[in-house]
Amino acid sequence: MKQIGVGLLGFGTVGAGVVDGLQRNRALLSARLGVDVVVRRIADLDITTPRGVAVDPAVLTTDAQAAIADPGVDIVVELIGGTGAARVLMKAALEAGKSVVTANKKLLAEHGEALFALAQKRNVDIYFGASVGGGIPIVRVLREGLVGNAVVRIHGILNGTCNYILTRMEREGLPFGTVLAEAQRLGYAEADPALDIDGFDTAHKAAILALLSYGFHVPMASVPVEGIRGLDGLDVTYARELGYRIKLLACVARVDGAVAVRVGPTLVPLNHMLASVAGVFNAVMVRGDMTGDTLYYGRGAGREPTASTVIGDIADIARNLRTRQARHSRAAQNARETPRLCAADETRSAFYLRLMVRDEAGSLGRFTGILGAHGVSIAAVMQKAAGSEAAGFVPVVALTHAAQEASLNAALDEITASGVVSMRPVRLRLLEE
Amino acid sequence: MKQIGVGLLGFGTVGAGVVDGLQRNRALLSARLGVDVVVRRIADLDITTPRGVAVDPAVLTTDAQAAIADPGVDIVVELIGGTGAARVLMKAALEAGKSVVTANKKLLAEHGEALFALAQKRNVDIYFGASVGGGIPIVRVLREGLVGNAVVRIHGILNGTCNYILTRMEREGLPFGTVLAEAQRLGYAEADPALDIDGFDTAHKAAILALLSYGFHVPMASVPVEGIRGLDGLDVTYARELGYRIKLLACVARVDGAVAVRVGPTLVPLNHMLASVAGVFNAVMVRGDMTGDTLYYGRGAGREPTASTVIGDIADIARNLRTRQARHSRAAQNARETPRLCAADETRSAFYLRLMVRDEAGSLGRFTGILGAHGVSIAAVMQKAAGSEAAGFVPVVALTHAAQEASLNAALDEITASGVVSMRPVRLRLLEE
Repeated sequence: MKQIGVGLLGFGTVGAGVVDGLQRNRALLSARLGVDVVVRRIADLDITTPRGVAVDPAVLTTDAQAAIADPGVDIVVELIGGTGAARVLMKAALEAGKSVVTANKKLLAEHGEALFALAQKRNVDIYFGASVGGGIPIVRVLREGLVGNAVVRIHGILNGTCNYILTRMEREGLPFGTVLAEAQRLGYAEADPALDIDGFDTAHKAAILALLSYGFHVPMASVPVEGIRGLDGLDVTYARELGYRIKLLACVARVDGAVAVRVGPTLVPLNHMLASVAGVFNAVMVRGDMTGDTLYYGRGAGREPTASTVIGDIADIARNLRTRQARHSRAAQNARETPRLCAADETRSAFYLRLMVRDEAGSLGRFTGILGAHGVSIAAVMQKAAGSEAAGFVPVVALTHAAQEASLNAALDEITASGVVSMRPVRLRLLEE
Repeated sequence: MKQIGVGLLGFGTVGAGVVDGLQRNRALLSARLGVDVVVRRIADLDITTPRGVAVDPAVLTTDAQAAIADPGVDIVVELIGGTGAARVLMKAALEAGKSVVTANKKLLAEHGEALFALAQKRNVDIYFGASVGGGIPIVRVLREGLVGNAVVRIHGILNGTCNYILTRMEREGLPFGTVLAEAQRLGYAEADPALDIDGFDTAHKAAILALLSYGFHVPMASVPVEGIRGLDGLDVTYARELGYRIKLLACVARVDGAVAVRVGPTLVPLNHMLASVAGVFNAVMVRGDMTGDTLYYGRGAGREPTASTVIGDIADIARNLRTRQARHSRAAQNARETPRLCAADETRSAFYLRLMVRDEAGSLGRFTGILGAHGVSIAAVMQKAAGSEAAGFVPVVALTHAAQEASLNAALDEITASGVVSMRPVRLRLLEE
């Protein structure tokens, strides 16, 4: 049976999982693929620390460029991460005419355009299934399974750390800081959690979903991103009372010929499939023009799930090499024109608002009047019991009908300046149906 | 741009959806694929009734064999259904060296082995994505996305008619017959609903999932199948009180070197993702040895969702034709050995039991004693308020720990014969965690 050689760059958690999976399921894979996939080179700065997987020492090297150049290496797997060495080495691999598998969402979100152009020029492929959704084959689903669909919209829970924190805040009534500290202690959150909790990891993944769906490279700086760092447990509780659960959602959607990409905490109705996604799990709901709503759910990170998707990509390239063809470079260029990206405040949504309103006659009328003057109509408004937040102010929760975000923002500016509230109102989106 | 011609056999609901989708998203598809997919022939006995989609009359024919033989037809799409003409024509297409796309689960479940062998001999492919899960690309996920995984088990809600009936029985407290009649009136159930409600449609799909996961053709006659026709609303209510929802599940799992395939109504915990699948939607939960649990959800039937998956398969073959290769014939032969199929009563499960027990002292002790003598231990037992079911008998609900099904059946035989109950106890599985 023909052998296909893999050169692995970066022997960390996922890298070790890939080596382990390829060894453990080798017979199964070769029976399924008709080729035998073997790891020929593993490059890492550290080649001495045990990774809990048996490796022939002759395979290990600290010289990544030599691993790429090795004639026995047909496929390069980049699992270094970041945009430094990873970028240099991925370029080197593509220049050498070798297809690349990567899980590096940041590199693709920030430098994907140049890398895909290089791959196409060299007639090789970049596979990036593990860059979004870990063990969920969502990239493949968008690229192949739903290939006959125009994507209407996508909503995704794409960061397990945030979903874990939100799940515990809701179930146990704990404040954000307490749950974050415990998530860090348990290894579910990084020592520097900013990339996760401020929404940037989710935004990188949203950009890749937009690339797959609409065929253009989203400029990251133009994506409105809100994380969950500022989320108050009070709003988790009120949302629940109203029949919603707060999730950090990526939203990618076609809106009147433009494309909206954004990330933010969003109220999801309890009976919606996305509301059932608990703990570190991820899920992506895709509405195609033919399929209607479909959902994909699984572990969004971790050694084995991520390695599973990397191996799925290796398998695809191995099948392509059997027939000596690159097949998917076009996947990133499926639109003839580059759609316009919506401005942050251009989109419409229904909103949840929490206002700390001065506890005196006429307060309610003043803020609803300001909203109405900006064309924002109220679907429901509830005064809650006063807590210890601010003496003389009481929390009021309002749900709006769908409104232009720019109008809502202007109304909230005016309400804040009016002195009728003690702080700028909390504003969260509602998942549109 | 190279053109790829499709010959469509069967111009029914899904066939019209395929033609419509290929026309509507033609530019998108050709940009994504690098080839232009055109419908060259449409064969049906009825070529006069309007299908709500514009078709060049010259494309229509009543001669399916001529459509297959047409040199402009590169791909044959079989949407006739059944195992008569569909089988003859699929064989003719494969013999003619043309790859086939089909949604025909019954044909594949009953005659797949011979058809796949013929495809391999002719070096062409059979794509059958739409045979399971409608618009959910579950076949592709198993064949490609999870290719690096050994499949541990699969649980699927695969029949929208049954799920619709179960959802309404639970939400509205209605009896089976009432909901079925209404489902028939609304077009959610066939005039002859047996294939759906007796579980055979689900079993055909389970056989295909087993083929993809374990690489062997499951003999349909060996698959234990229970439908929902006999399901009593009382058990839906009691299950709900215990924190469960009853779903018709297909289960495919590796059990000690053998493979278990079965279909039956099953109690699913309310917080489980499968419990959230309501109405006509389908979902499949796949546990891979690397990914852990993943779930795929969407519309399991209907013109547009099913056509979406057919088009995804056409796209794959079109890409293959661009590179002049068949790629997936091996998918059905991924196991070196044929695993043994578990006997119906060989598997272990926890069970829900409802017994109509004689309302007198000692009754409870007698039946729990018989269960215990057969090695079946009870996790919980509750006596319910007597209804109008049978004078002198009261309903008792019990949940067992995991037990061998053969032992449980023997115990239930003995309990029924003992006279302590008015009817054979109701016995439903609990979803194992």
